[in-house]
Amino acid sequence: MAATKYVYFFGKGKADGRGDMKDLLGGKGAGLAEMTNAGIPVPPGFTITTEVCTLYYTSGKKIPASVESEIAGNLSALESAIGKKLGDPRSPLLVSVRSGAKFSMPGMMDTVLNLGLNDDTIKGLIAKSGNERFSWDAYRRFIQMFGNVVMGIEKDEFEHILQTKKDARRIKLDVDLSADDFREIVAQFKKKVKAVTGRDFPQDAHVQLRMAEEAVFGSWNNPRAITYRRLNDIPANLGTAVNVQAMVFGNMGETSATGVGFTRNPATGVKEFYGEYLTNAQGEDVVAGIRTPHPITELQGEMPRVYKQLRDITTRLERHYRDVQDFEFTIENGTLYMLQTRTGKRTAQAAVKIAVDMVKEKLITKEEAILRVEPSQLDQLLHPIIDPKAKKSVIAKGLNASPGAAVGKAVFTADDAVEMGKKEKVILVRTETNPDDIHGMDAAVGILTSRGGMTSHAAVVARGMGTPCVAGCESIRVDEKGGKFTAGAQTIKEGDWITIDGSTGEVMLGKMPTIEPSLTGEFGVLMTWADKARKLNVRANADIPRDAKVAVAFGAEGIGLCRTEHMFFAEDRLPHVQAMILADNEADREKALAELLPMQRADFLGLFQEMKGRPVTIRLLDPPLHEFLPKREELMCDVAVMKAQKKDNTPKYKKVSKLLARVEGLHEFNPMLGHRGCRLGIVYPETTRMQARAIFEAAAILAKKKIKVIPEVMVPLVGMIAEFVNQKKLIVEMAKTVMKEQKVKIQYMVGTMIELPRAALTADEIAKEAEFFSFGTNDLTQTTFGFSRDDAGKFITRYLESGILEKDPFVTLDQDGVGRLVKMGVEKGRASRAGLKVGICGEHGGDPASVEFCHRTGLNYVSCSPYRVPIARMAAAHAAIKEAGKTAASVTK
Amino acid sequence: MAATKYVYFFGKGKADGRGDMKDLLGGKGAGLAEMTNAGIPVPPGFTITTEVCTLYYTSGKKIPASVESEIAGNLSALESAIGKKLGDPRSPLLVSVRSGAKFSMPGMMDTVLNLGLNDDTIKGLIAKSGNERFSWDAYRRFIQMFGNVVMGIEKDEFEHILQTKKDARRIKLDVDLSADDFREIVAQFKKKVKAVTGRDFPQDAHVQLRMAEEAVFGSWNNPRAITYRRLNDIPANLGTAVNVQAMVFGNMGETSATGVGFTRNPATGVKEFYGEYLTNAQGEDVVAGIRTPHPITELQGEMPRVYKQLRDITTRLERHYRDVQDFEFTIENGTLYMLQTRTGKRTAQAAVKIAVDMVKEKLITKEEAILRVEPSQLDQLLHPIIDPKAKKSVIAKGLNASPGAAVGKAVFTADDAVEMGKKEKVILVRTETNPDDIHGMDAAVGILTSRGGMTSHAAVVARGMGTPCVAGCESIRVDEKGGKFTAGAQTIKEGDWITIDGSTGEVMLGKMPTIEPSLTGEFGVLMTWADKARKLNVRANADIPRDAKVAVAFGAEGIGLCRTEHMFFAEDRLPHVQAMILADNEADREKALAELLPMQRADFLGLFQEMKGRPVTIRLLDPPLHEFLPKREELMCDVAVMKAQKKDNTPKYKKVSKLLARVEGLHEFNPMLGHRGCRLGIVYPETTRMQARAIFEAAAILAKKKIKVIPEVMVPLVGMIAEFVNQKKLIVEMAKTVMKEQKVKIQYMVGTMIELPRAALTADEIAKEAEFFSFGTNDLTQTTFGFSRDDAGKFITRYLESGILEKDPFVTLDQDGVGRLVKMGVEKGRASRAGLKVGICGEHGGDPASVEFCHRTGLNYVSCSPYRVPIARMAAAHAAIKEAGKTAASVTK
Repeated sequence: MAATKYVYFFGKGKADGRGDMKDLLGGKGAGLAEMTNAGIPVPPGFTITTEVCTLYYTSGKKIPASVESEIAGNLSALESAIGKKLGDPRSPLLVSVRSGAKFSMPGMMDTVLNLGLNDDTIKGLIAKSGNERFSWDAYRRFIQMFGNVVMGIEKDEFEHILQTKKDARRIKLDVDLSADDFREIVAQFKKKVKAVTGRDFPQDAHVQLRMAEEAVFGSWNNPRAITYRRLNDIPANLGTAVNVQAMVFGNMGETSATGVGFTRNPATGVKEFYGEYLTNAQGEDVVAGIRTPHPITELQGEMPRVYKQLRDITTRLERHYRDVQDFEFTIENGTLYMLQTRTGKRTAQAAVKIAVDMVKEKLITKEEAILRVEPSQLDQLLHPIIDPKAKKSVIAKGLNASPGAAVGKAVFTADDAVEMGKKEKVILVRTETNPDDIHGMDAAVGILTSRGGMTSHAAVVARGMGTPCVAGCESIRVDEKGGKFTAGAQTIKEGDWITIDGSTGEVMLGKMPTIEPSLTGEFGVLMTWADKARKLNVRANADIPRDAKVAVAFGAEGIGLCRTEHMFFAEDRLPHVQAMILADNEADREKALAELLPMQRADFLGLFQEMKGRPVTIRLLDPPLHEFLPKREELMCDVAVMKAQKKDNTPKYKKVSKLLARVEGLHEFNPMLGHRGCRLGIVYPETTRMQARAIFEAAAILAKKKIKVIPEVMVPLVGMIAEFVNQKKLIVEMAKTVMKEQKVKIQYMVGTMIELPRAALTADEIAKEAEFFSFGTNDLTQTTFGFSRDDAGKFITRYLESGILEKDPFVTLDQDGVGRLVKMGVEKGRASRAGLKVGICGEHGGDPASVEFCHRTGLNYVSCSPYRVPIARMAAAHAAIKEAGKTAASVTK
Repeated sequence: MAATKYVYFFGKGKADGRGDMKDLLGGKGAGLAEMTNAGIPVPPGFTITTEVCTLYYTSGKKIPASVESEIAGNLSALESAIGKKLGDPRSPLLVSVRSGAKFSMPGMMDTVLNLGLNDDTIKGLIAKSGNERFSWDAYRRFIQMFGNVVMGIEKDEFEHILQTKKDARRIKLDVDLSADDFREIVAQFKKKVKAVTGRDFPQDAHVQLRMAEEAVFGSWNNPRAITYRRLNDIPANLGTAVNVQAMVFGNMGETSATGVGFTRNPATGVKEFYGEYLTNAQGEDVVAGIRTPHPITELQGEMPRVYKQLRDITTRLERHYRDVQDFEFTIENGTLYMLQTRTGKRTAQAAVKIAVDMVKEKLITKEEAILRVEPSQLDQLLHPIIDPKAKKSVIAKGLNASPGAAVGKAVFTADDAVEMGKKEKVILVRTETNPDDIHGMDAAVGILTSRGGMTSHAAVVARGMGTPCVAGCESIRVDEKGGKFTAGAQTIKEGDWITIDGSTGEVMLGKMPTIEPSLTGEFGVLMTWADKARKLNVRANADIPRDAKVAVAFGAEGIGLCRTEHMFFAEDRLPHVQAMILADNEADREKALAELLPMQRADFLGLFQEMKGRPVTIRLLDPPLHEFLPKREELMCDVAVMKAQKKDNTPKYKKVSKLLARVEGLHEFNPMLGHRGCRLGIVYPETTRMQARAIFEAAAILAKKKIKVIPEVMVPLVGMIAEFVNQKKLIVEMAKTVMKEQKVKIQYMVGTMIELPRAALTADEIAKEAEFFSFGTNDLTQTTFGFSRDDAGKFITRYLESGILEKDPFVTLDQDGVGRLVKMGVEKGRASRAGLKVGICGEHGGDPASVEFCHRTGLNYVSCSPYRVPIARMAAAHAAIKEAGKTAASVTK
């Protein structure tokens, strides 16, 4: 049996390992091996495998002797490749030591550079480089890094010495320190190491190396790494590899340089060589911004041969990896070394263009192109953004509740928003919003609240409307009555211009320049491919024709949720709705409903017309009735004040106190769990009848004109089959009545929301009667977790911070809990009714991870805000392609 | 193949059918067959089977001809047995026609008597009976019954004619009507039938019979019967049988009589012949109360032979059926006929005594004895009752929220209850109660509220305390400030005596005499047997030593739920609790907690001492914090009034508005789904630490005295394993700290409530860390149904009325929904941790049907209010015995 190989060499155009050995060599080690094998000039070195990490822990946190000897053999090979020896005072080999797990893990030890320097080898480095200052600088950098990451000394300890030296020399920048300064600093650093750790800084280069290797393995189990793994579902037994690589220096003189670049423009996606470099500099100098780097094209003039080599190499790398490469290089005395290449991050716009271009270049398939664009990235393309070049004056930051930038004058009441909004753009600023504010939210171009979370009323409604919203901006104080808000020392009054960015949560003073979204040709092309790839249908949640229009424009294939109560809040309806609620008897209630009927009919007619034969799911009245009435506590205060003022004999007092009595009667401690949903229609069947009549009469008008329309009537909040049967009977009877009256035939379905655990648990029963299911995952999440969306903001934030929750379950569907109920609901439902149509209409319908879950669970469609429809379409395509496994592992990773 | 037999004859000591043929003959028919076969004198007749009911419906609502001929054959047999013929003008056979399904169904047609009478046969009856008045009375009774139940004429139509006749004759009672009067009435009845139905009253006795038979079958599907079946889970395809039986008359003269009786005293259970009779009377006269019946023992003097025969027969019946019999008999001209015998209904006291006596008599086994006592019946034995002889003046009726009668002076605030309660008994009357009222509820002997359901605060707390409570008494208006309440026209002021009956929901004026419960010797004996039979342990929910004492006295084997927050509401603690909540920083919070620590420690010490080594499950702080603070809306009103009065510069204003700001900060729209349960302990870990310290320090005090104590620390409202892990860590650390400080070892467990759907769905994960589970089925019901206990009262009532809900899911565990989650939780939990201890601590722990479910689901224990412990013990015994199937089907039914 061959002994296990624990160390993999790379260098001189050949590597022991391969690019697909990420498990064993880690991502970095596999990448170095792959580049080496591809003939790319990479400084040579070796990778100690992840298996040694396991051995390290099972051997009492030591690298076993057998592995040590294998390392020694590889070190010799490295020494002979470079022609220098580790610890050789005349010609010392210097190496970097880096961790590298299968998955990139910021929690672990990163890098130690210049390892091998000591009081002897520094002399050799000075001699070889002919640069005393460079050499002492390298030594002090080494002690600083090694002291911190291997020996655990606080960074500040070293920084303090450095700063003291600069203060003493009255200079500000490190570059102004001399070779002597650095020599003195090295001495002080060594003293500090002794003082803090009680031992000398290790002078033996081999000891340095072993300590660094063990520190990498040890860092696998530091608390940050453990937390990171837990949060990212990375198994704890993978282990990390260690990469030991010869150092190269870009700061050896004018024929040395260092730089970074991209094979295409990462901002625009244009196919152009893109990057910057500095001569006589180290990598960190490029990013530090002390010297201004040059555009990479200038390298062509300075070092034409190296430039050509670099272009050749990076072009090869892009073709090899079949994606845009983000690379780092160093030129040491005219020799080019590639230090790293990886997939380049890019903007949404660039991602779309690159994906489509690469298909045209036959570099990737259409499916791969789709997978190259993260669905959530598309959000950037669907909303106005603040001109990146503009200078921002951010005065506060809240939650990025509904994306897009908006510029408008601050207003503080819904009525003012409507009034002022007629003349100019306004942003509605409120402590929090409630259903009374709908008309104002509708009139505003943006919404800013100081309270409430990602699923507060303001956030949900704004997303539905596609209006930018910053919610829960707790650092501002809103004084609605005073018509102003304060942010720190600043006071913003009604009429002052402000800008909000719902994508970042930022609030800015004044009018910021914005850029409207441009859906370039490539975007359209990519979406066509996505639509072909996906299996899941995508519908939109839309309550009014305007939203329906947007939804269709964004590719919605139907309406998955029309919330009829949103119509009830309209100014011309609320009085009738209130009359209905306040009715003492059925007759009065019927009268108020008769007033509402033509309005609702017109609503539905508008929706049906806009949707042009696409299915429209209409949910019957859902919210608790007191949402439509004045606030109980305000009425209480009014009554108390009138009493205190001895005005309790006035007609107004009597009116208000009568109203209060009715509101008290409707008061609930937990309205979310109270008299709402189908419970309303069961106790007040006339409401269901009116809504059903409005739906079918609207459908009849179109049916007579031979226009196809398939209403799907949806009963909300069903927990028991008997509830559904009760409501279905009323709806079916009304359908028959209207068809008879109007002498037309209307195709329709009656189904239900599955939004209570009990509904999912008894879905087999419910499906015997319900013709379709739509999972209301907002409510289902509320009851499954016992979290109120309106109240959970506070502790959910804490939960996310402390890692108790990985993701807000109102944003991304909780697959382990809520998802289990969804799965159960689908399986039980289809067991009773084969082929049952099942959708989802919660906020999750627009969340890519949740869409993927819906695909896997076999749903027929997802329904989301109109503005998230393209995201859902893309996510559905991703899910289908991933499931089909059409792409090789190397591409999907 | 033999033809199916559709008609079963009984008479002359032999029946075609048997007692076990209830499916085919219905309960009544099977009983008549069994009595006949046992040699009991029963008027002969025949039963048309339930299968004919099905044929009736499949044959267009007709009895098929083949069955008609079988009926004719049996009618001939009946005629020859009696020696009379149906419709024979000289010697007419009269029969009764009764429905009889497998299960007794009050919704169906009941009885038609005297069938066979017409204008001809009346003559024969007069001749044979020699009693003209009896005969005409019989005829008019027949028309009345037949007209109503077969021909569908309103009862009032006949009653009106009867009343007109009595008015004309200036008499009040039917008995004063003469033969002529009845003859005239018969004529008028027949005219009325013609007028209402348009056809003559049928004169053909065979037509009468067929019509009556078909009416019985038709009544199987009348709306009342359908509703009854749905509510009682009776399959619709069972059908009803029809019993046709020869009439016998107890009103033929002085050697005729009729009576009812029991084989043992149904009130006391004493073994004595018990009943009453009337000579020369019909059955309905005994119950009508017009003549006073004689005690049955007097029959011995009047008709010694018949009396002896009756005693022999009923004794045989009791031995045959092995249970107390409730029988009806008629003596016609000195011949005894048994008309019915059935299991006798009895009081709880009687049930217990009879069960124990019958075991002593070796009539039944101990297991059977246990099954003879319905667990819920025991409630009658555990609370004071109103003297049944007392005359009640009921002024209102509410929900029977907590059983028992209480007499006291009305008070309207908690403080008054405490104050006045020192001197005399008080009943606290409130619109609703809230946690602020606890001290007053504690001081009162009874609680009356005008709002809230069976699980409102008042109801839950009262049951926990064992204090009688009438809740949701909506017909009274409580004016707390005015110190009075009104019930109709009556006004009850503070200090007025009232009586409430929490077992019936009645509210009475004045001091009613009450009877204290007496737990007789038999009761104790039976409970010992029950304890031996059951497998499920029974614990109690108890928060304070006093409750724990009661619980132990009632047989509790531990505390399944100690709600630590109930202690927080105590007068001496609330200020510290409020200080803790209002603290701006951790230091202030720690200070307030330090004040609470010794008090909580004393609480737990008291509990542990009372429980003497039995397990005690202590739940950490659970309710949302604002429950401990003044009400938000009241503060808002105070502020508004002070502002209106220009007092907004006073120190009081500043104080109140500061408090309001904090209360606003804690305000939640749905507190049930808000910041409560372990979410508190996670955000404020110092609270958990204080409670854990109090628990372990109390345990340490006893451990040092070598007194055994096993605290089970319970983390509430866990939905995610990470929440539990967070809290468990704090608890375990504190346990270690205290053990180290106190130098003792304490045995303890850390477990969790399973009260959220997500906890049940992920119970396998949670059980990896949790050492026990306790299902909080109150909360689990809330979230599974999406019903708030505090708010659902209104629509749950509607749901129960309309049959959407069969039972209030807060009273009886919903097995199809919530139960499925419980089952899942148990299975998943034990899959991770074999032998995991699992209990239930919701209100359901004291509900017999739910206890049976817990037994079947393999729970280890149920925990309920102390006063329901005996009920739970008995229910657990029932469940175990039923499962073991130790008893024959005939006995369990």
